[in-house]
This record gives sequence, C-alpha cells and structure tokens, in this order.
Amino acid sequence: MTLQRTVTGMIIGLALTTVTAANADPIVTERHTVTLNTITQELNKPWGMAFLPSGDLLVTEKAGTLRLVSLTGSISEPLAGVPAVVDSGQGGLLDVAIDPDFATNSWVYLSYSEADPNGGKGSSTAVMRAKLTPTGLTDGTVIFRAAPKYERAAHFGSRLVFSPEGHLFITLGDRFSAKDDAQTLDTHHGKVVRIMPDGSIPADNPFVTTVGALAEIWSYGHRNVQGAAIHPATGELWTAEHGPKGGDEINIPAAGKNYGWPIATYGVNYDDTIISPLTHVDGTEQPHYYWVPSIAISNMIFYTGDQFPAWHGDLLVAALKGSHVARLDLEGERVMHEEILFAGGIGQRVRDIEQGPDGYIYLLTDDRSGRLIQIKPAE
Amino acid sequence: MTLQRTVTGMIIGLALTTVTAANADPIVTERHTVTLNTITQELNKPWGMAFLPSGDLLVTEKAGTLRLVSLTGSISEPLAGVPAVVDSGQGGLLDVAIDPDFATNSWVYLSYSEADPNGGKGSSTAVMRAKLTPTGLTDGTVIFRAAPKYERAAHFGSRLVFSPEGHLFITLGDRFSAKDDAQTLDTHHGKVVRIMPDGSIPADNPFVTTVGALAEIWSYGHRNVQGAAIHPATGELWTAEHGPKGGDEINIPAAGKNYGWPIATYGVNYDDTIISPLTHVDGTEQPHYYWVPSIAISNMIFYTGDQFPAWHGDLLVAALKGSHVARLDLEGERVMHEEILFAGGIGQRVRDIEQGPDGYIYLLTDDRSGRLIQIKPAE
Repeated sequence: MTLQRTVTGMIIGLALTTVTAANADPIVTERHTVTLNTITQELNKPWGMAFLPSGDLLVTEKAGTLRLVSLTGSISEPLAGVPAVVDSGQGGLLDVAIDPDFATNSWVYLSYSEADPNGGKGSSTAVMRAKLTPTGLTDGTVIFRAAPKYERAAHFGSRLVFSPEGHLFITLGDRFSAKDDAQTLDTHHGKVVRIMPDGSIPADNPFVTTVGALAEIWSYGHRNVQGAAIHPATGELWTAEHGPKGGDEINIPAAGKNYGWPIATYGVNYDDTIISPLTHVDGTEQPHYYWVPSIAISNMIFYTGDQFPAWHGDLLVAALKGSHVARLDLEGERVMHEEILFAGGIGQRVRDIEQGPDGYIYLLTDDRSGRLIQIKPAE
Repeated sequence: MTLQRTVTGMIIGLALTTVTAANADPIVTERHTVTLNTITQELNKPWGMAFLPSGDLLVTEKAGTLRLVSLTGSISEPLAGVPAVVDSGQGGLLDVAIDPDFATNSWVYLSYSEADPNGGKGSSTAVMRAKLTPTGLTDGTVIFRAAPKYERAAHFGSRLVFSPEGHLFITLGDRFSAKDDAQTLDTHHGKVVRIMPDGSIPADNPFVTTVGALAEIWSYGHRNVQGAAIHPATGELWTAEHGPKGGDEINIPAAGKNYGWPIATYGVNYDDTIISPLTHVDGTEQPHYYWVPSIAISNMIFYTGDQFPAWHGDLLVAALKGSHVARLDLEGERVMHEEILFAGGIGQRVRDIEQGPDGYIYLLTDDRSGRLIQIKPAE
C-alpha cells in the first residue's frame, strides 16, 4: 500500500500501514462535551509529534524511528536520516520540533539519547537539526550534546520548544543518580538550556560570563523536564517537571534562576524516604503549581484554538501515570482551578499533547500499540 | 456540676455538661502528621466560634444559644442576652466575633436571622453588638439589618471578621430565590458589607455617594458567603462563597467590585440546568480559586501559628459537603497546590474553623451531636 504525502510542497512516496480509526462515546467535561477519536493505534512507543504545514504529523518512536502520520491514520515507513539513538531505559528517539521558518528552510529538530562518540559507556541528550526532504532527513548536524555522557538510562528531559524570538529551549533531566549536579553549573544535568537554531549560544544567556558555568544554561535545579510551552500572551517559557513520589511541578523558568531540585522539593523518594526536608530554600524559586502525589506530567500546551472556546488560554497538561489530561484554568498566569479530563477514558499513559492547526487537540500514548488521539467537540 | 470560668478577668459560675474528650489515631498528611482530638461532641448544630482572651471559646448553636466552651470540654448553660433568632432553614444564631479591643471593651458581635420587627413574614441577617459580662450579654444593640426582609430561609451568609483598620465585614447571601438582586445595589442580597463596630458607615465605603445604592455595601455579585479571613500580610479580606452545583469560590473582594453572581458562574443548578452560560462577563471579577463540583465551603483561616510550620501562610478552608478541610498552599496570594485534609476522617460537615491562641486548629461540625475538634501535631 502506497500513499502520496505532501511535505512542504513536495511529493513523497512511502509504504503505509493500515489505517485505523475509532470513534468513542461523547465525554462530558465541566465546560465541553468531547469525543476522543483514535486516529491510529499502530505507533510503537511514540514520544513526540510536530505538525507540518501540510497538516500531517512528524511522530517519533522511542526505538529510533521517525514517521509521517496523516490525520486519516496513514503511517509512513521510517524516514531516512534519523540519528542513531541509544534505545535503553528512558532513552531513545524523543522529541521532534519544526523550525519556526520551516516553510522556507525545512529544518527539523530531533532530541534523543546519543552514545558517546568516543566509545565510552554513557549516553546523553543530544539534538540534531536536519532538513526534511522527500527522501527523508538530510544535512543532519548535532547542534547540542548534554555533558557529560552518563551511564544511567534515565531522566533525559528532551522537550524542544522555540521562543518567540527564535531561540531553541531544550529541557533536560538530572540523570536520576546524578541529581546533585542539578545544583551546579558545570554540567547539563538538571538544566533547561537555550541555544540558537544552529547550536550557537545567545549572547544574552544568563551564564555566558560566569567562570566555570556552561554557557548554554538558561535555568537550573530541575529534576526531569519533559514538558514545555510558550505562554501565548507573555512569550515566557513554562515547563512541566517530573517529581519523584510527589512534587510534579509547573515552573516558569526565568533566566539564571534555580528551581531547587534536589535541595528543595515537595516530593519524597519512591520508598517514602526523605530527599530534602525543605520545600523552601533561600535562592531557589517555588513552583508555579505542583502535584502531590505525582501524576507524572509529560508535555503540555496552552490551548489557543477556536474549537473549545471555554478552554481558551487554559494549560492542558498530559499525565503518564494519571493517563489523563489536567486542565489548569488560568486567569492571567494564576491557576484558579484544576480539572482532570478523561480519567479512565484513555487507559494508556499520555506522552505528548499538541494543538492541531484545525484547533483540535492531539494526544500520543506511550504504548507498544501507541495511539494518536484526536479530541473534538462532540457532534 | 459547676465550674468557674474566667472571662475578661471576671469569675462566672455556670452549670456545665459532661466533659467528653477522645483521642484519635495519627493521620498522615503531606507535610504533618496530626491527631484530631474531639473536645466535645455535645454541641447542638454549632455554627460559629470565637476565642476569648481567657482561652475559652464562645460558641453559637443555630437554634439560638450562645455558650462558653473550655478546651477541656466544659460547656456552659446558654448565656443570657442573646437576641431572638428565626431558627428555620439555614437561619438561626450564626456567627460570633469579639471586638479587636475586647480585653478593654468586652464587645461581642453576633450574626443571626432576625424576624421583621414590624411583624412581616420575612427575616434577614442582622448583627447585634453586646457586652459580655459574668451574667451573660448586656447592652445589646442591633448594629446592622440586611434589607429587605425576605421569606425564603436560605443563604444568610453571616460570617463576621474585622479588618486591621477596625472595620467590621459582614458577609451576606442572595436569599436563593432573590439571586438577581446580587447584581443591584439597592438591597443587601448577595453583598459583602463593611461597617464600623457601632454600626455607622465608613466614609470611604465605595458607594457612599452613589445615588440609589446602600452605603454599607463593600462588594457585590456574591451568592452565599459563609467564610471570611484577613490575609495576614496584605490585610485584605478573602471570602469563601458557596456555589450551586459547582462554582464554590474563593474571592479577594475589593471595594466596589462585582463578583459576577448570577450572570457569570462556574456552577450549574442542582438539576444540572444552566444558570448562566458565561464564566466571564465584562465588569465582573474572576474568582481567585474555585471548585467544581462544589465541596460546600464554610469558613476558612490563614494559618499563622507555630504548631504546623509547613502550613504557615496556607489557607485552610472547611467544607460541609466534603466533610474535610482543603489546604491551599499559597505563594504570596497564588494557589500552588490543594491538599484534601481528613477526607473520611471527620464524618460530619465542617461548619467553622479557627486557629487557637495555642497554635492548634479548631473545627466545629454541623450536627446535633456537633463536635469541637482540636487538631494537634501527633506526639
């Protein structure tokens, strides 16, 4: 089976798997009644997605494949040119983003766990930039490598988002057993970094003149940041960070600020032992919002579409453990209310959330029969 | 059985009921492990309480009695001098507060549903000021009467709280079937009012020069405000307002502002029909925080004591329907997190919450075997 897909005006021919689509019963929420339509359930542990101008999606699968997926459920063969990834533990091919000027430059950005180019045992989060062509990715260049490489296959962070000014934010993790590094500026562990799309460092990054600090660092004291979105009115970066047992956090990371991990946290270890007795430490920032117990927050969006008027401006946060979407009703930046959407209705961990150009909301679920779900107003 | 209680340095002899005290098992919460000690369970539908300088409590019972209660569980006979109340529906003897200068002036304030002095059928919320003496209340004067009297025995509001400047805030309700009056300024329905302790009107009240407006009005567009507290840092009034089915609200009522009821609400009628399709209406204020579905919030406190350091600055909101206390973790005025305390552990509607001079937290439950509960850190 073959289908012609248009990407940036070009025709590409790719073998496709069977189309699957299922419509579910209407779900009543506080402000909207919606349906969850499964566009496909044939994705293998999808992690990230990005809409192309064509209306198709680029979707990553953790084992190392990048596919084109249409909203009718067509799934392409793996695209060529994807970097080699270390598919181990939480590592693999992770997020995908397109350049703000993709229509003219065709740049695509992929985050992934990369082996040590020097043959060492560790891996770390890297970001490749490449051009999307009818035959796959070309001209791939690694524009960021988290340092140091580290053996534990956990807490890679990896969400990619562009600022309105064109900077690329890359969210990172503390690599679990290296958590104390989140408080120092000489590694990328537990940091959010900000670079230019070509990998160069913005001259106004907060630590460019700090001796001993890595110049890519934007903010620090993070645990494992797997969600990021730009506030539509303020242009500020907001992030979603996994806590341990308790202490999932929404933050609004500001340049050079310390978000406290692991010296200040609302979480405890998975065995209930104390990480830090402190929630407040001088010189560290409080979260903007937090969850106890953890729901395992992955990605998030500010909803700005027309399909769900009562959700306009709300922060929709996908949850892995919770298998739901948390809707935070915002007034300005202030959380007024939290609604749990679709509790029990999805049944799989929600790994990514995006708003489509059509104003519908799209979810990816973290499963070997991973689903792309389209959320629409009920008819 | 007789016990001598000291009130403002005076000895009073009053018959007392049997002392009841029960200790419960430790309850683990996110930040503190506590015990709920029942000081007495022999209060008949208690509504409000106020600590005296002696450490004893004045407690109202809805049917029209005011009693002294000690923290050892002694309960006095009804004090003399209490106004006649209309104990019907939600009406009766409601809140009690003491003057900020009680130690020198002995003034006590009671809110209650008062019959029409002219013999009409309706009632409305009134406030009496009286002096507490060894023989009960004397020199009682009605310093406020909500207008008009109205027949429906619902939504009297009635919480009393003093501003740092010495104004008395009285929270009111919309009387249920008179809800549209919450949007006009010619009745007290659905208002928060601000008066001086002698009943006179502060010269800087927002509507003193507005033709056709009642000069006592501080804010409007409220449904049924049964909780009030002064923020310890800002000195601002915060209120807790019952929504219908959904839409319980915390507000920070500012002078002359409109809080939207019933033209803007997050709630629906109990039969799920729409009250207003709108949550946002120009000229009305959004809530600071809200609940859907409703937990039926009664009174609330900002915790400022030393017994629960991790709760310092938090807003503790008592819930009738929820039979729990909602802890809102605040950073400045912003809600970062909500914890449900004691779900299932109280088993009765929580009608009032106060902080004691000892730093412990006290609850009253709304039952014919109403309890005074002392919340302490577990040993």
